[in-house]
Amino acid sequence: MDQKSYRRGSFQSATSDEDMLEIAGASMDFSMADDDPPLDREMGAGFSSCNGAGMNSTSTMMDFLEEPLPGVGTYEDFNTIDWVREKSRDRDRHREITNRSKESTWALLHSVSDAFSGWLLMLLIGLLAGSLAGLIDISAHWMTDLKEGVCLAGFWFNHEHCCWKSNTTFTDRDKCPEWKSWSQLILGHGEGAFAYILNYFMYVIWALMFSLLAVLLVKGFAPYACGSGIPEIKTILSGFIIRGYLGKWTLVIKTITLVLAVSSGLSLGKEGPLVHVACCCGNILCHLFTKYRKNEAKRREVLSAAAAAGVSVAFGAPIGGVLFSLEEVSYYFPLKTLWRSFFAALVAAFTLRSINPFGNSRLVLFYVEFHMPWHLLELVPFILLGIFGGLWGAFFIRSNIAWCRRRKTTRLGRYPVLEVLVVTAITAVLAFPNEYTRMSTSELISELFNDCGILDSSKLCEYVNDFNSTKGDDLPDRAAGPGVYTAMWQLALALIMKVFITIFTFGMKVPSGLFIPSMAVGAIVGRLLGVAVEQLAFYHHDWAIFSGWCSQGADCITPGLYAMVGAAACLGGVTRMTVSLVVIMFELTGGLEYIVPLMAAAMTSKWVADAIGREGIYDAHIRLNGYPFLEAKEEFSHKTRAMDVMRPRKNDTPLTVITQDTMTVEDVENIVSSTTYSGYPVVVSRVSQRLVGFVLRRDLIISIDNARKKQDGIVSTSIICFTDYCPPLPPSSPSVLKLRSILDLSPFTVTDETPMEIVVDIFRKLGLRQCLVTHNGKLLGIITKKDVLKHIAQMANQDPESILFN
Amino acid sequence: MDQKSYRRGSFQSATSDEDMLEIAGASMDFSMADDDPPLDREMGAGFSSCNGAGMNSTSTMMDFLEEPLPGVGTYEDFNTIDWVREKSRDRDRHREITNRSKESTWALLHSVSDAFSGWLLMLLIGLLAGSLAGLIDISAHWMTDLKEGVCLAGFWFNHEHCCWKSNTTFTDRDKCPEWKSWSQLILGHGEGAFAYILNYFMYVIWALMFSLLAVLLVKGFAPYACGSGIPEIKTILSGFIIRGYLGKWTLVIKTITLVLAVSSGLSLGKEGPLVHVACCCGNILCHLFTKYRKNEAKRREVLSAAAAAGVSVAFGAPIGGVLFSLEEVSYYFPLKTLWRSFFAALVAAFTLRSINPFGNSRLVLFYVEFHMPWHLLELVPFILLGIFGGLWGAFFIRSNIAWCRRRKTTRLGRYPVLEVLVVTAITAVLAFPNEYTRMSTSELISELFNDCGILDSSKLCEYVNDFNSTKGDDLPDRAAGPGVYTAMWQLALALIMKVFITIFTFGMKVPSGLFIPSMAVGAIVGRLLGVAVEQLAFYHHDWAIFSGWCSQGADCITPGLYAMVGAAACLGGVTRMTVSLVVIMFELTGGLEYIVPLMAAAMTSKWVADAIGREGIYDAHIRLNGYPFLEAKEEFSHKTRAMDVMRPRKNDTPLTVITQDTMTVEDVENIVSSTTYSGYPVVVSRVSQRLVGFVLRRDLIISIDNARKKQDGIVSTSIICFTDYCPPLPPSSPSVLKLRSILDLSPFTVTDETPMEIVVDIFRKLGLRQCLVTHNGKLLGIITKKDVLKHIAQMANQDPESILFN
Repeated sequence: MDQKSYRRGSFQSATSDEDMLEIAGASMDFSMADDDPPLDREMGAGFSSCNGAGMNSTSTMMDFLEEPLPGVGTYEDFNTIDWVREKSRDRDRHREITNRSKESTWALLHSVSDAFSGWLLMLLIGLLAGSLAGLIDISAHWMTDLKEGVCLAGFWFNHEHCCWKSNTTFTDRDKCPEWKSWSQLILGHGEGAFAYILNYFMYVIWALMFSLLAVLLVKGFAPYACGSGIPEIKTILSGFIIRGYLGKWTLVIKTITLVLAVSSGLSLGKEGPLVHVACCCGNILCHLFTKYRKNEAKRREVLSAAAAAGVSVAFGAPIGGVLFSLEEVSYYFPLKTLWRSFFAALVAAFTLRSINPFGNSRLVLFYVEFHMPWHLLELVPFILLGIFGGLWGAFFIRSNIAWCRRRKTTRLGRYPVLEVLVVTAITAVLAFPNEYTRMSTSELISELFNDCGILDSSKLCEYVNDFNSTKGDDLPDRAAGPGVYTAMWQLALALIMKVFITIFTFGMKVPSGLFIPSMAVGAIVGRLLGVAVEQLAFYHHDWAIFSGWCSQGADCITPGLYAMVGAAACLGGVTRMTVSLVVIMFELTGGLEYIVPLMAAAMTSKWVADAIGREGIYDAHIRLNGYPFLEAKEEFSHKTRAMDVMRPRKNDTPLTVITQDTMTVEDVENIVSSTTYSGYPVVVSRVSQRLVGFVLRRDLIISIDNARKKQDGIVSTSIICFTDYCPPLPPSSPSVLKLRSILDLSPFTVTDETPMEIVVDIFRKLGLRQCLVTHNGKLLGIITKKDVLKHIAQMANQDPESILFN
Repeated sequence: MDQKSYRRGSFQSATSDEDMLEIAGASMDFSMADDDPPLDREMGAGFSSCNGAGMNSTSTMMDFLEEPLPGVGTYEDFNTIDWVREKSRDRDRHREITNRSKESTWALLHSVSDAFSGWLLMLLIGLLAGSLAGLIDISAHWMTDLKEGVCLAGFWFNHEHCCWKSNTTFTDRDKCPEWKSWSQLILGHGEGAFAYILNYFMYVIWALMFSLLAVLLVKGFAPYACGSGIPEIKTILSGFIIRGYLGKWTLVIKTITLVLAVSSGLSLGKEGPLVHVACCCGNILCHLFTKYRKNEAKRREVLSAAAAAGVSVAFGAPIGGVLFSLEEVSYYFPLKTLWRSFFAALVAAFTLRSINPFGNSRLVLFYVEFHMPWHLLELVPFILLGIFGGLWGAFFIRSNIAWCRRRKTTRLGRYPVLEVLVVTAITAVLAFPNEYTRMSTSELISELFNDCGILDSSKLCEYVNDFNSTKGDDLPDRAAGPGVYTAMWQLALALIMKVFITIFTFGMKVPSGLFIPSMAVGAIVGRLLGVAVEQLAFYHHDWAIFSGWCSQGADCITPGLYAMVGAAACLGGVTRMTVSLVVIMFELTGGLEYIVPLMAAAMTSKWVADAIGREGIYDAHIRLNGYPFLEAKEEFSHKTRAMDVMRPRKNDTPLTVITQDTMTVEDVENIVSSTTYSGYPVVVSRVSQRLVGFVLRRDLIISIDNARKKQDGIVSTSIICFTDYCPPLPPSSPSVLKLRSILDLSPFTVTDETPMEIVVDIFRKLGLRQCLVTHNGKLLGIITKKDVLKHIAQMANQDPESILFN
């Protein structure tokens, strides 16, 4: 397996090595956290696999009884939060505000404003995410058109807008005199081979410029801005801390580079990155409210809602966005969050609509309206599309992961800029000659989804018209004209190109979403199949399978619907989304009529893809990057017990413990300096090993230092006492250091015989960082979240060392 | 408080007293479980409040190592299941099937069929629920019309159907010669006062007959069939067992009586009961599959999906149904269930559509299509509607709960049949003269939602027409004609009647849903306000507030939209639904345009209602009936600790424990016979009190009996040994009884200092039945789910004894 060597690469990249940063390629460059100074990673306990590793939490139960010391209650970078403690802290805070609110009017106002701050935050997130999405849409539209020409009436107009502004009359909607292609501008005319070559050349040059700028910005200012961001956001929402990943620099750079990357014509979409952008907005706006700034658990609720707003603006599908956040992204999603997410998603969608970037007053990216119902027999091609979607999804995930692994492990990863330029050049050179690849991918999808009306002038709608049989708006099935056949060929070529280029594009060092390319692949296949079925029905309407529902002159097949079903199938195969996928598609069409075909295809696609490989693309990338993500969807199905997972193992040194009232300050300081564990169990005595509580390393160090400085009579031989009543000492002995206040008296425990499936369940549902293991009331060992993740990896025959952080 | 005395009433009714059954009224009559013989409730441990109470679980970890004894792994009635154990059992089962599948083709097939059985089950539930909903719709429609007349072409036709079949031409669509009102049939003519009185009389008589039949059927055959069923289903889904509540008799009787109750014209709806019916279908169909029949946790997943299917057919809103199940009904809702629920909801909706009970090929109950966008200023009336909805919701809940409590505590509850007859008579007498109350409530809502077209003949659309200003389909705002004013008066009267009669109707001994009456109240208010705003805009379009968006001759106000917003607000105020409510309404209109008004109203309504009383109607009924439901939405916010809740309390007798290897058979038998606890902690020794495990009463009794009968040398003085290696005994002593196999070695423990908020969280998220409390590794006490519920009630200043069952 390459995994181990990749791990080393990525690990090294974390040690602030400027060169290694490029090796890690599109993966996280943990040394480049943009909000905080680089970490001294060697100090972190996260990498040793011995007992107690990875528990650097500094939150205590006592934060609210006294003024917290600076730094207390926060976490170090690349650590896992303790959900139980965070939620406890929030409840304590809430309780205090509620109690105070009875005292004065001011406190009451504070309590009310505290209760509504969540809603205000959602409103702000919705407004900001919607505005940014509108900005991105408008800029990307303009810059995409810039590759082909410029508007004389004002260079800041895009093609469509330019022709709206035009006062002159012109025949073809697209060809207004104000809009000049590059050849028209430079040569003065747009005809002939030379003009074509000039346009071709300009197209490629612009594409290269955009992508170069994008990759340089990402590399130079915000390495976290690359990729889709969804795997990392999933990990963050599950409780991991990656500082700067949702910071202001990431937001700015990701927004700019997303526009550049989309405009460069690369085979990528803006949907995944928009989720990242929305989450950045959420994270930054959290700083306005103490409630969310200081509590990692509350902040993650906000981020879940922001993710919903991101998908909502990406597709104009607020309900789908909320379900996407629920199904795919979020970890802890209480009902309160559901309702707030919905609000944020709606505000974002309506902000976007009032900006009206598509110029059609529609909320959705691909607005479609179908008129004809579908027939039950059509389920056969729909299920075929589902099978194709599943196969494509599995194929894409395998190839993309293999390529990303190769990038990380070979010299290839050292040249991210070159890689982006090469891929852009290949994409642009291949794309220009084919009109279906030259247009932006979302335009392509729109056109494929479109049901041909009587006035449609696109090539895909060049049917042999027989106006005698037309009744009202409904067009009967017709024979395909030469335009349709040309379009079929071009689409087939576009399909082949998209299939391969997307594999190499996703994971490069530019922001890149996967939704649009996947949907494009599915939509092309769907449209091809749709037209094929349509022509079959037209020429062979006497066949038994068509009898009864598709007689001559009837409009029975809608190729646009096939394209939509195909898009859903491919997207489902790649992401393994289910309900949210169907709901997003439902919101695009607005008709419950088409839910059954969409569902049939999505279900088939998921089953087929799952049969080949269980992981969706995001989970695969999480595993590739070794993020500590405890998957909530997969059941842990092995018959191991807590004793098989806990540290210390049989032949290890025994667990490092502190006794409750017999150790001196010096003993404890020795333990702290000789180990790197971030917490220590406190027991009654070494002999009995009966558990009293759990104390965190950081609290211990701070408290001892503090006492030595400020408390009289505390010397190295002072006894440290964690109990309420300390045992009487001979009068000559130095005074006792009482540390009960920093002791967590309610550590989670399980017995050594507890099945691991239950332990995993507890870790997932309660969001624990560690859990102590007892046998007959005696402390035996400890299980950390990292131990659990390693054990799961081991049971799945993966390298347990691939779990890097905890 | 009346609560305590009610508790007694309900408790007595459980002791199979035929008369007391009527006292309990609409509450559960636990003696009448229809699938199982009546229980000897006195034996159950659920009612003593001392330590260890209420843990009658009989599942063990060992079920799969040996052939389970009959009855092992099942629960007694009115007990709480242990989610952790149930899920463990399912995983064991799954693991075994997966392992076996490698052995033979047959086992592989079994494994595949096992994996797909969930989907098959969903399909069946969808088909059955959809068919039953169709049947109910058709029958209710027919019987509602039967109150007014009969079809000569065939008495089984309803009014609409009868007139479709008619061959004769007639002017008014509603007045075909085949359809005879009762006066026409009996007197030969339908004119005049006498005919009116005869029709009136027949209307009341039919209503009384239907409701009498309904209440007698409920009372005689299936007392569980009354009410909406949602509070009980919430309780069951949270892990409580009420045998027969979802049984076949309940299904049959509820289906029949629902039709009767709806047809009788009472102010009730069929939506809640349809959820109950769908859950019955789910529960019954579970018996076809071992996987679901034998596992209470898996079965609850199916029931969650069935609830979604129920709402889906009630409104024709599959996505809304799934969200309703997620938000309102379900307790444990993994993502897998989400996807399956969606499937079941879709199948049910499409089954219903193919039955086509509304005759319009539409899926939804109230199909509406609005053409006009709304203006931002209209949010003011929408928010007013939200405030009204919240006030109505809070008022309704208070009055209804007060009335239901009175019914339970006074003599009133003894005469359920009389109560139903009186309410029916009052409803029918008041309803007939007013055309808006005479029609069925869902027809009324349809009419109120409807946007007046140019050809609408209803009174609500009698505007002063000015055909000159009409452009195409769009009608400008017009002056209201006399018909509209009459309609306004009648609607106002209908509103007053509905508001009061619904309070007395919900909770009677017939199936009764609350959605439709709540929506009707809101729709009437909304329509009234809508028409008022419309006329204001028409007559005063020069006012500043209308300038710019509502000029003369423009169509700017849609009263139907106001009705819809009002309906959503009132439904939200009563049920406190949020996302699911908006999504259901969205599915009715199919346009994202109207989500913002709906959301504004739903949010306002929830805030207003929550400010007056935190509980929705279902939660209020759960509390009224004392079901052991651990609410997942409310945070526990008090600062108590585990030691304050655990049993034994300070001055109680110490915890009854069993030692691991020193007690004799006789000692254990004495403990079992002298206490009623359903489980006992096993400790190392009485002195050390170090916890070894937990043993269930039932397992202990069965194992000792079994050993005494079949094992040689087991006598009363035999030592019972729970350890792996039993201590050596003198040769003269009788042989040792080894019982390690029945010991649960992984009981959940918390320390005595654990805050109760964390304990409550653990109980909720893991679905525990009990949890042991330790201090420094020593066993101190036990907390059961019932203790937690009592503590929550106590903290909320409620009578802790109102929690009846565990």
